[in-house]
Amino acid sequence: MTNHQLTMLFLALALISLLAFGAGALARRLRQPPVVGEVLLGVLLGPTLLGEAASGALFPDDVRPFLTALANLGVALFMFTVGAELDTGLLRGRRAVAGTVAAGSVVLPFGLGALLALHLFDSHPAADRTGFVLFMGAAMSVTAFPVLARILTDRGIRHTWLGAVALACAAIDDVLAWTLLAAVVAISGAATGSQGLLLLFVPYVLLMITVAGPALRRLLAGSWAVDRDRSASTVVTLAGLLASSAFTEWIGLHFIFGAFLFGAIMPRRTARTARTARTAGDAGDGRADAAAQAPVPSERISDRISHLNDLLLLPVFFVVAGLKVDLSGMDGGDLSELALILVVAVGGKFIGAFGAARATGLPGRPAAALAVLVNTRGLTELVILTVGLQLGALDHRLYSSMVVMALVTTAMAGPLLHLILPTRPAAQGLPDAAPYPISTTRAQSGGESGT
Amino acid sequence: MTNHQLTMLFLALALISLLAFGAGALARRLRQPPVVGEVLLGVLLGPTLLGEAASGALFPDDVRPFLTALANLGVALFMFTVGAELDTGLLRGRRAVAGTVAAGSVVLPFGLGALLALHLFDSHPAADRTGFVLFMGAAMSVTAFPVLARILTDRGIRHTWLGAVALACAAIDDVLAWTLLAAVVAISGAATGSQGLLLLFVPYVLLMITVAGPALRRLLAGSWAVDRDRSASTVVTLAGLLASSAFTEWIGLHFIFGAFLFGAIMPRRTARTARTARTAGDAGDGRADAAAQAPVPSERISDRISHLNDLLLLPVFFVVAGLKVDLSGMDGGDLSELALILVVAVGGKFIGAFGAARATGLPGRPAAALAVLVNTRGLTELVILTVGLQLGALDHRLYSSMVVMALVTTAMAGPLLHLILPTRPAAQGLPDAAPYPISTTRAQSGGESGT
Repeated sequence: MTNHQLTMLFLALALISLLAFGAGALARRLRQPPVVGEVLLGVLLGPTLLGEAASGALFPDDVRPFLTALANLGVALFMFTVGAELDTGLLRGRRAVAGTVAAGSVVLPFGLGALLALHLFDSHPAADRTGFVLFMGAAMSVTAFPVLARILTDRGIRHTWLGAVALACAAIDDVLAWTLLAAVVAISGAATGSQGLLLLFVPYVLLMITVAGPALRRLLAGSWAVDRDRSASTVVTLAGLLASSAFTEWIGLHFIFGAFLFGAIMPRRTARTARTARTAGDAGDGRADAAAQAPVPSERISDRISHLNDLLLLPVFFVVAGLKVDLSGMDGGDLSELALILVVAVGGKFIGAFGAARATGLPGRPAAALAVLVNTRGLTELVILTVGLQLGALDHRLYSSMVVMALVTTAMAGPLLHLILPTRPAAQGLPDAAPYPISTTRAQSGGESGT
Repeated sequence: MTNHQLTMLFLALALISLLAFGAGALARRLRQPPVVGEVLLGVLLGPTLLGEAASGALFPDDVRPFLTALANLGVALFMFTVGAELDTGLLRGRRAVAGTVAAGSVVLPFGLGALLALHLFDSHPAADRTGFVLFMGAAMSVTAFPVLARILTDRGIRHTWLGAVALACAAIDDVLAWTLLAAVVAISGAATGSQGLLLLFVPYVLLMITVAGPALRRLLAGSWAVDRDRSASTVVTLAGLLASSAFTEWIGLHFIFGAFLFGAIMPRRTARTARTARTAGDAGDGRADAAAQAPVPSERISDRISHLNDLLLLPVFFVVAGLKVDLSGMDGGDLSELALILVVAVGGKFIGAFGAARATGLPGRPAAALAVLVNTRGLTELVILTVGLQLGALDHRLYSSMVVMALVTTAMAGPLLHLILPTRPAAQGLPDAAPYPISTTRAQSGGESGT
């Protein structure tokens, strides 16, 4: 690493953290999730507006790999916190709904995306026709799990029935989309030679849930007494999530699954324990306080990790993804292609998810809200598009159009959700006695994520 | 960045964070600063014990640049927190002592180091004789500012007269040593073409103190009301410290000075305000609480930054530095050279600093304690040695011996300090009414740094 690389890396990080925070704040003021502002910032800092030369001077080619490394670390840490804060208890008895909506929101977009690919293949000759068709299908089926989590957090509805189902759908969607992507990688013959390893994911998940989870619970609970400042617990957690990321990346899936999975198996207080503890704690019962601490609250560890991450590393990912977009050479043909892509992406997701939700007996409004939410593409789409670019399944023009699609579908979610559920009602026809925030403290704080 | 690089990077980070924490904890149990354990871990993970092949498989060559980038980011963030927590108020009226001791602890080691270089030049032919002599002089004059800060923190004496003077000495030592290093770089003709820029450092420091400091104070105090969760303040701080790091790296000094300087100009509560606020706050006076918050306490921002950094990024630096050491091929000649290096390093620092301290009228014990403390080489020495390796001033054998010297001098500090100041007395002949911790809460917590 040369002095110049180091100088430019520090400068890039300074710029990104400051500008991304500003862009996020601006987006928030415009009632958009901050991530839209952050990715847009990346696009603006890229060749589209600044031009190749200026953008290259600000983020030189020999510094970008370092930014990518930091961005990936940021995404891994973020995915962990998403997993750690996922309230699986809220899903209880609603797995059928989540599964059906997820299936609907994948099958239709995939089919439409594959048809679109057949149409686009002549103007965007990819290395392999089948690979291209599968890739476009997968790219259309994606729901941006992390971005969705941020939107839900920003809206204060992450810990609600709707939030839990939407996140579960997104998780299922993403597993399907990544599996498809893995198939594309295999077919495109990218010669990683690791397709067979993918099968290891199933036993890995089982092992993590049945062995690692309980072990982690015992370990963190045990260290609670001696580990006063929680450093040891945090280190074990960090090392675990990084190792899990490395494993899933190694088998060819993607590191974000390992990070998320490790977050998901983190010990947490059940809603019941927490409520009991809080009530008893208010009454000044010391034993209940101890009980409240017994299953280590992973929230504090996850808070610690996300402080620096939300403000420094994660924004790097969004900006780096935006940097690769070049819209400067768009002509009429590209624009009509973009329109077609948008119709397929939005139409496929919305009709597929809405239809499936209605089929499970969900009323119109919550079904529409779910459909709007799973239409969010954001970060996951950006990761998939980057892979597509590397594989040669996408050329630079199509990549840029797809990023615009990802941005538009992400930006749509907020206003549409506001239209469908204008207020935060006590009951909006959702099939649950307490459809909205179960944990009142979280709901009142509005947004727990800094960015 | 390939899948394989990403996998190995995550794996390396998982290993480093876990092992470094363990090594640090072990070192602490052996009454050593954690940093000794962390660097030793790096040496053990390097070619000396594991062998070139195994070490290369664990930390592949194409992954090390990424580790270096993370390590540098970690050092920058750490240096900022050191600067931010530096209590300049404690130095008031003691600048003469600090200056004299610093001068003594640089002049003698530099002279002896230069003589040693003349002796070693035949067996370690460097690119340039003058450059080699200056380099060895500079390398012997170093006091590890950050490691010293960690030792002082671990001992709970950072916020004392002794701690403040030792840190001030280290700061002066380091500026002198870096200036010498810059001269070596210029003479060795490393063709960076940026020697002239070095002169910008003086106006930069003045600008930071007179303009940036007050501006930062106003900015952070102003944003306090609207910036409820402190995200904006943290981002401004992060961006500022990174930009300052980039600037000092650009002019050819070293990024740690920029990071430290930015920390040093951070607004802080004076000891008096803090005490008043605490007393009034205990009495339940709301206005006093507000007053306590008025000058933004940079401690909270610095805490936020150091959580993830202490556990993940900073350990990477120590391990990476250790990885480059290869002691496997040491023979008798190397060992006697090592002994000579140790005598020169320890003797020069100790006699120089002790003599100067006594000359200012300091009693024997505190003078000896100061001399022991400024003998700590640690991190700064490692940075300088890396530069020497790059310049060709050091060959790999001499680099390895010098790292051992850095480790030994750092490891000596603890036990020697314990011998000189066995207890934490109320008055040990130090010329101060309250020589030991002024802030009791800090002192009681023992060590505020996690690692």
